[in-house]
Amino acid sequence: MQIAIIGLGGIGASIGLAYQHAALGDRVVGYDVDADAVQGALESGAIDEPCDSIEACANADMIVVATPPRAVPELFQHLAPHLRPETVMTDVVSVKQPVLAWAQQYLPYSNRFVGGHPIAGTERHGYQAARADLFQGAPWVLTPTPDTDADAIAQVEHLIRAVRAIPMRMDAVQHDHEFALLSFVPHCLAFSLAALHKENPTQMQGGGSWRSATRVAQSDPALWTDLLLLNREATVEWLDALIERLRAVQQALQHEDAKQLRALLQPRSDWYNQC
Amino acid sequence: MQIAIIGLGGIGASIGLAYQHAALGDRVVGYDVDADAVQGALESGAIDEPCDSIEACANADMIVVATPPRAVPELFQHLAPHLRPETVMTDVVSVKQPVLAWAQQYLPYSNRFVGGHPIAGTERHGYQAARADLFQGAPWVLTPTPDTDADAIAQVEHLIRAVRAIPMRMDAVQHDHEFALLSFVPHCLAFSLAALHKENPTQMQGGGSWRSATRVAQSDPALWTDLLLLNREATVEWLDALIERLRAVQQALQHEDAKQLRALLQPRSDWYNQC
Repeated sequence: MQIAIIGLGGIGASIGLAYQHAALGDRVVGYDVDADAVQGALESGAIDEPCDSIEACANADMIVVATPPRAVPELFQHLAPHLRPETVMTDVVSVKQPVLAWAQQYLPYSNRFVGGHPIAGTERHGYQAARADLFQGAPWVLTPTPDTDADAIAQVEHLIRAVRAIPMRMDAVQHDHEFALLSFVPHCLAFSLAALHKENPTQMQGGGSWRSATRVAQSDPALWTDLLLLNREATVEWLDALIERLRAVQQALQHEDAKQLRALLQPRSDWYNQC
Repeated sequence: MQIAIIGLGGIGASIGLAYQHAALGDRVVGYDVDADAVQGALESGAIDEPCDSIEACANADMIVVATPPRAVPELFQHLAPHLRPETVMTDVVSVKQPVLAWAQQYLPYSNRFVGGHPIAGTERHGYQAARADLFQGAPWVLTPTPDTDADAIAQVEHLIRAVRAIPMRMDAVQHDHEFALLSFVPHCLAFSLAALHKENPTQMQGGGSWRSATRVAQSDPALWTDLLLLNREATVEWLDALIERLRAVQQALQHEDAKQLRALLQPRSDWYNQC
């Protein structure tokens, strides 16, 4: 079995490293427009061999698309004429409906495409950020449609387990709506706080709460511009709801209404306390 | 020399532990309304001996007030008739102007009071959260006034260095304005996101960006209700500025204006990258 990873940044190279760690005897090949990323993936052992071209990846049994989202539509069109009907494809973009639409539009065997989203990114990016244990214990959402082949889903779930993540299934619409709150709004907040601070520099450094609030503002702003535009409706909706709550906090402060303010400040209801 | 710590929660008990680690031979006594906190501080070695009453603390050479802010005005009034003119006092409340006003109003020797704010809290609270290394390398802001005795400032700076923190001086107005952005707004955001999520629970757990964005929503909401009310003007002002930026992000999304959106998403300008 041969797996081709297209895009050897933090996520793509980590998939290669983690899969090689599983030592299943499969061959991992890879492609990236950046020759340094290819070289890094080769040297770290994330891939066994580079593909000379995108087309050369099309022959693999499974293709993992790990490019930035803006490269995906063109990539699908490039691959389309070279794909075999049995090849399974998946991706790692954190918004799913547009990717499913591109698969439908451009791929000849879109029933072999299974949209995916590993919940394991960090603010670090590029191939230098690759880690064999990046997916250890992390959820990895798949968003199959009613047309997706069960066998293709099973093969992608096998890959996910091999890299030590936990496969989950979810409707793409619900996925995009939930992650607009869980990830897209937090990125908007972090970038906006960082921008506000840039315009109003302080003498003091912030402590832990500032570092946490702005950590993901070290992510790639160009990538997040693209992602936010791809999930704009749900993000706008959650931003509305959040702004309404912040206005209520402001009003409680202005009216010195301790009871109302206390009701607005809710502790995090927690999955996480056991961690 | 005898130091009295009033309030043996996460900050107060950590000051005791860290000061004892410095092994300067001084005697550390402490008081808390919660008998468990006193017992915990004794057993961990944060204090050498409990004070039987608040009044019994008044005889110390230095009094560190580490109670919740709402307890401070009454505490000052309790202590006032028992204080000696040479005793130095300091506090750890993260908003300074109201504490300075209470000192002015209630303390007989307010020139011996030096307002302080260690930038070292965490979302964990209570005496169980105490750590001897909590202040290691952390900034600790003092906000003396023109009337504060130089000798009192020097004594508090000595305490700060003994617990391995870095003393800094700042005007109280500027302090409160800067920390409204650096700490109070991040707490508003975390609590508001947590509240929004509580009303709209998701099937999926959030990943790293959600955990960072909501980490401090595990802080004590009652404490933050009090703190926010004490720093309400600056917090309302920064919330206005942030909401304006979030509205601009929404507009860029609604108009699918990639260029404008990209300009709004600013990376964190960084003190922190070297960490």
